[in-house]
Amino acid sequence: MSHTAEIIAVGTELLLGNITNTNASEISRALSAVGVNVFWHTVVGDNPERLREALDIARKRADVILTTGGLGPTYDDLTKQTVCETFGKPLVLREDVLEHIRTYFARNVHLTMPENNRQQAEFPADCVIFDNPVGTAPGCAFEAEGVHVLMLPGPPFEMRTMLQNWAVPYLRGLSKEVIVSHDIMTFGLGESPMEDLMRERISRMENPSLATYAKPSEVRLRATAKADSAAAAEAMLVPVVKEVTDYLGDVVYGVDIPNLETVCMTHLKEKGWTFATAESCTGGQIAARITALSGASSVYRGGVVSYWTSVKAEVLGVPQTLLDQYGAVSEECARSMAENARRITGADIGLSVTGVAGPDPDERNNPVGLVYVGLASPDGTWCRKLELGKRRRDRIQDLAANHAYDMLRRCLTGLPIEKSSTGKHMEKL
Amino acid sequence: MSHTAEIIAVGTELLLGNITNTNASEISRALSAVGVNVFWHTVVGDNPERLREALDIARKRADVILTTGGLGPTYDDLTKQTVCETFGKPLVLREDVLEHIRTYFARNVHLTMPENNRQQAEFPADCVIFDNPVGTAPGCAFEAEGVHVLMLPGPPFEMRTMLQNWAVPYLRGLSKEVIVSHDIMTFGLGESPMEDLMRERISRMENPSLATYAKPSEVRLRATAKADSAAAAEAMLVPVVKEVTDYLGDVVYGVDIPNLETVCMTHLKEKGWTFATAESCTGGQIAARITALSGASSVYRGGVVSYWTSVKAEVLGVPQTLLDQYGAVSEECARSMAENARRITGADIGLSVTGVAGPDPDERNNPVGLVYVGLASPDGTWCRKLELGKRRRDRIQDLAANHAYDMLRRCLTGLPIEKSSTGKHMEKL
Repeated sequence: MSHTAEIIAVGTELLLGNITNTNASEISRALSAVGVNVFWHTVVGDNPERLREALDIARKRADVILTTGGLGPTYDDLTKQTVCETFGKPLVLREDVLEHIRTYFARNVHLTMPENNRQQAEFPADCVIFDNPVGTAPGCAFEAEGVHVLMLPGPPFEMRTMLQNWAVPYLRGLSKEVIVSHDIMTFGLGESPMEDLMRERISRMENPSLATYAKPSEVRLRATAKADSAAAAEAMLVPVVKEVTDYLGDVVYGVDIPNLETVCMTHLKEKGWTFATAESCTGGQIAARITALSGASSVYRGGVVSYWTSVKAEVLGVPQTLLDQYGAVSEECARSMAENARRITGADIGLSVTGVAGPDPDERNNPVGLVYVGLASPDGTWCRKLELGKRRRDRIQDLAANHAYDMLRRCLTGLPIEKSSTGKHMEKL
Repeated sequence: MSHTAEIIAVGTELLLGNITNTNASEISRALSAVGVNVFWHTVVGDNPERLREALDIARKRADVILTTGGLGPTYDDLTKQTVCETFGKPLVLREDVLEHIRTYFARNVHLTMPENNRQQAEFPADCVIFDNPVGTAPGCAFEAEGVHVLMLPGPPFEMRTMLQNWAVPYLRGLSKEVIVSHDIMTFGLGESPMEDLMRERISRMENPSLATYAKPSEVRLRATAKADSAAAAEAMLVPVVKEVTDYLGDVVYGVDIPNLETVCMTHLKEKGWTFATAESCTGGQIAARITALSGASSVYRGGVVSYWTSVKAEVLGVPQTLLDQYGAVSEECARSMAENARRITGADIGLSVTGVAGPDPDERNNPVGLVYVGLASPDGTWCRKLELGKRRRDRIQDLAANHAYDMLRRCLTGLPIEKSSTGKHMEKL
């Protein structure tokens, strides 16, 4: 039987927006990986009445309640007390844990334990104690009236450690079911066209199930299977992933890959190739995205941010005559930028972007969103013209960078380079 | 009378942990700034029963309900329908909004509107429509039975725009009390030294109040005043902002300024100066951060991402002898990179970064986190040596970029350039 969980984060800081509830997403990933369905996240302040109310609601709708925060030594750390009141369990002092905390202070903090840390050694009767190797606040878990309650500390690093060391094994013990997901990454189709293409499959499929997730400039398809074992779930996913990737064709750039630059890095390493960049309206973003990946130096040599036309001419070597005749925002300029990025760095491939990111048209009155993306390789030079319309500046830059990496990906895998989608889905663009 | 709010985020992706609920913290900050107390955050999936249950709970305990997500065009975008059922309001098609969405598609997406976007033009009867300038999903707000319900889209950039344009003014209209905040931006002191310096003031002050917010590589101090008019609140804040900025001295880089690059852009425009970049381990991030700002072309000429040493020599013109003798990660190289960035672009100032972002030491065995930041101006060349230790790669890149902009800011305002903090707070570093 599969379990239903609610994650309750306790902390006024979260409600003030001083910190973001990253614990909830991290715990959610861990729980769905062990087949526990997370149906609710709740955040309450350091307030016993509202925490008790949240616990009363949660116990009615979930059979696993996981709390974070409120296990510290200060007066407003009330989670254990409030949980005990709600579930009618006594709070008892555990001498062994008290001793452990004293030792932790002596060893790691080089202090004698302050008296208010004493409450960190009090626990609900008959609970499993989650030892905390990286802090003073231990967690715990117990079952009462068919509900499993797990309490973890709030600081993300402590929470993470105890989630992996204690909570996940505890929950794995409760559930027979395993959930496995694979992400099919696409670029070149918008969310609505993708919905149109996939609607029938999405509504038809149950286990494995299929869902679309739109990122600002690409769409991810997630296939998820539930089974008694990881191996069984994987086996169920193989045909689904194949069916979807076959159906979508070359808009799929990979499976379980975080982004286009990562797949480009993989292909470049395989070929032993390097690339270079010449960026105008993306202003260094294409370079920043590849160099954000460790190991980028094996595939990326560098490039020029030719923001001013003079830099295009003098540093990159775009002919002044070309710039005078066609302007900096032109197919001719994009091609020359890509070719010169190759030439001056000695890279195998040159990628270039020139366009109008906005908010205003350029001095030649080219409209916002007009962008040319160039690629130069040993086999020739290509250019993709984009009319992205009057979107926000950062969206235009982000989309242009994605198009550049999409052209690179297509060049490296022998696909048509200038179109972002080919074959039967063209009309959906 | 002060209001009590619950933020309900709708999205299965949040419950699967695929994305983190950053909207909730951002909305919480905005709401507390207008005097609305946020007491609960709730997350439910794309599931009408559970959303309805969450709304039923929320309407009993809050008089402001703000939802995010579920306003999109796809079949699982159910927020408006479910809210209408819960509050017994009919859902009506607004032809004017439908027309607006059609136009948006034609203008910005260069597509005829897919039919499933039609539901984005359906709204609760008698609601205020929140026009969405950056996407197709409008939001809305209505009052029913003493509860104000506001619906915003889920994608953070759309949510943020509509929060500021619509939700904040709407909520400000509900409250008599005016809350005004000013952010004092600092760079050069870590969070705990800042805490030590400010603790006494923070605990002493009530209205205006003072709080610190740490970002990965800088600390923001927020002074907040409550009064019956904005003017009165502003008047209360003047002496506080002056006291804090006087006390902290040159670690303060501005008030109500989003980041260091923005303050640099302002000073550069005043002086009519331009700058250029030469980046190694930051890989284009310094360039990307300035070009993210509209109007960057008036102060930023461009630069070189000299990721490979050969690019430092051949494109930037760093002498090969210097590279052989001192290596690419050296003060000498950083100085030469900055000077050459100036030279080849003709900019007034050159900024450079060379270092080891990790995860591994470089080929000369320089440790991860060793970074040299250079600045060359008409008056000379400066270099700041950073030992950032074995942090995450992106943290090192982000910190290095901040140090580069801090040096630029100091150069432009006549402050000592090589130290990130001077005067009485040095010992706190």
